[in-house]
Amino acid sequence: MAENSVPFTDIVRGLPASVPFVGPEAIERARGKSFRARIGANESAFGVSPRAASAMEFALGRLSWYADPEAHDLREALAAHHGVEMAAVCIGAGIDELLGVVVRMTVEPGRPVVTSLGAYPTFNYHVTGYGGRLETVPYKNDREDLAGLLEAVHRLRAPLVFLANPDNPMGSWHEADAVQTLIDALPPDCLLVLDEAYIEFAPEGTAPAIDSSDTRVLRMRTFSKAHGMAGARIGYCIGHPSLIGGLNKIRNHFGVNRVAQAGALASLGDGDFIAGVIAEVEAGRRDYAALAERLGLAALPSATNFVAIDVGSGERARAILEALAEDGVFVRMPAVAPLDRCIRVTVGTAEERAIFAEAFAQVLERVPN
Amino acid sequence: MAENSVPFTDIVRGLPASVPFVGPEAIERARGKSFRARIGANESAFGVSPRAASAMEFALGRLSWYADPEAHDLREALAAHHGVEMAAVCIGAGIDELLGVVVRMTVEPGRPVVTSLGAYPTFNYHVTGYGGRLETVPYKNDREDLAGLLEAVHRLRAPLVFLANPDNPMGSWHEADAVQTLIDALPPDCLLVLDEAYIEFAPEGTAPAIDSSDTRVLRMRTFSKAHGMAGARIGYCIGHPSLIGGLNKIRNHFGVNRVAQAGALASLGDGDFIAGVIAEVEAGRRDYAALAERLGLAALPSATNFVAIDVGSGERARAILEALAEDGVFVRMPAVAPLDRCIRVTVGTAEERAIFAEAFAQVLERVPN
Repeated sequence: MAENSVPFTDIVRGLPASVPFVGPEAIERARGKSFRARIGANESAFGVSPRAASAMEFALGRLSWYADPEAHDLREALAAHHGVEMAAVCIGAGIDELLGVVVRMTVEPGRPVVTSLGAYPTFNYHVTGYGGRLETVPYKNDREDLAGLLEAVHRLRAPLVFLANPDNPMGSWHEADAVQTLIDALPPDCLLVLDEAYIEFAPEGTAPAIDSSDTRVLRMRTFSKAHGMAGARIGYCIGHPSLIGGLNKIRNHFGVNRVAQAGALASLGDGDFIAGVIAEVEAGRRDYAALAERLGLAALPSATNFVAIDVGSGERARAILEALAEDGVFVRMPAVAPLDRCIRVTVGTAEERAIFAEAFAQVLERVPN
Repeated sequence: MAENSVPFTDIVRGLPASVPFVGPEAIERARGKSFRARIGANESAFGVSPRAASAMEFALGRLSWYADPEAHDLREALAAHHGVEMAAVCIGAGIDELLGVVVRMTVEPGRPVVTSLGAYPTFNYHVTGYGGRLETVPYKNDREDLAGLLEAVHRLRAPLVFLANPDNPMGSWHEADAVQTLIDALPPDCLLVLDEAYIEFAPEGTAPAIDSSDTRVLRMRTFSKAHGMAGARIGYCIGHPSLIGGLNKIRNHFGVNRVAQAGALASLGDGDFIAGVIAEVEAGRRDYAALAERLGLAALPSATNFVAIDVGSGERARAILEALAEDGVFVRMPAVAPLDRCIRVTVGTAEERAIFAEAFAQVLERVPN
């Protein structure tokens, strides 16, 4: 049968082949060797809570059973943790999956969707994949431009707008008041996806109070970062029960695995462990800032588990990335100017940071300014 | 903000609140007590391969890392296992997730999609969820009606048709030749989703040869049944690389977790374990058939890990299900007539089968004919 007879929808037929990220494993395969420091995907270097580890090992013993599609116990705990009703919480296989469901829920083909130029590519992937039209607002001083996002929402009558706070890939952040001001100014028929994947690493006062009575905001949280469970694939969102009801009409109900649910529940109860991770990450950020200064560069302030280091230009950043990879060190960089004058380095273990420090210093000597 | 201002798409706004299945945990919560035999969701009673268990425990040690979004090692092994190219294999978080992506890939809103009346509800859930129009073909002699499905495809010019072989919920099956005849008669612009979740339990000669040069078929396989990994959420599909390319344009690339990928790879290599599971399931099916006969009922022939037992009418089946649940035994039943004259009982362990045998005999005495 001829390939052109495949009954793709018009949207799918028109899409380019693309992926949000090429994984480090694919880069390793292409290079024929493993990375010695994997500090490019903002994965936690500090493992999982011992309680989560035990819970997950135990869950392996009943892996023949499907997980609870309602994730009742975890949602109950999350609701209590955040002071909201259970009906305001929805679980997904990471924020990535939830972003896809939210876009599907709100974006008719051809409708405009607002995000920042250079912000999280997986959101863009889903918008494009559902036939939405991306409208990108440039960053301002390496932060997402709240006023610019709001202006675009009103101008385009966009049903959906994305904001990560703290931001990825720059590590910058806005204070809660500024974000709340944005929220308050949203039209009633616009939904803000507020991606707070890195919120645990941010200063007090970064997250606005959670208000599940407002139908205009979905808060996205994850167990992939501070909780160290990226490989388990579990995240959640909090919002008005009518929003969660919409997600429940279309989401893949049996999509979140049993090990992840058990681990997340246990990890949520281990605040001491998370506090320890946060302290380690703060120490790592200071390390990178000091390293950058020693090397005559600037590290951007960060409220996340990674640090953007300004190396002057996109061209230079790309050359540095390439040279670091050649030397077995995996880091990433923002995709577009002017953000791409930085490389983005995840806080690794002390050992990984030492590997990076040495490799980076050597690479900088080789790569022209 | 008023709920009616939420920017749902027209499709989502028009959808009823529904779930494909209410999980056994939700039934337990409603009843306020646990089931003593969970033999209703066609989960394996025979655990996972010891090799898979070791691999998964090991994978827990690196859970802070995202899994390979290309699932390279597993896809390579699956391609070798099935004698196809890697580009013909796509991994998903269970067949459920893949069904959603396939529907999204092929079904424009309003287009007809063909399936059997009473077949897998999750497929229907996705079709409705993407705005497709379900056209259902009645079963014929408790088997999906291949000629009827084909007739409907041609009559409606449907882009998508679903067939489970072996079938769920009846456990019936068609021989490979009959399925291949259906495939050969499909229009070039129709895609058959051939769901083979239970294929390991079927007689030799049930699965047509896999032909990834045919753009009209996607074969769905899972690690949830014979491999005992339902809670891990991992399945795959095999088809023409142009079909897989379409899925790759829109799927959630980081959706399959690290533990599942490691376990699946190990389990695929443990043919002896799977052979043992199949033998156990065959013994269990014989048990149920003998039990039904003792009780004056007929068990339908099954090529799966469950058995449909004919209790005479839908009304009686519902009453039996209710009484069994009250007695701590979880089984399910088909949703529509005439299939709903059966209850559907998963092959449990010998102990679970004994619990069922005793409870079922007692319930039959109480529930009128």
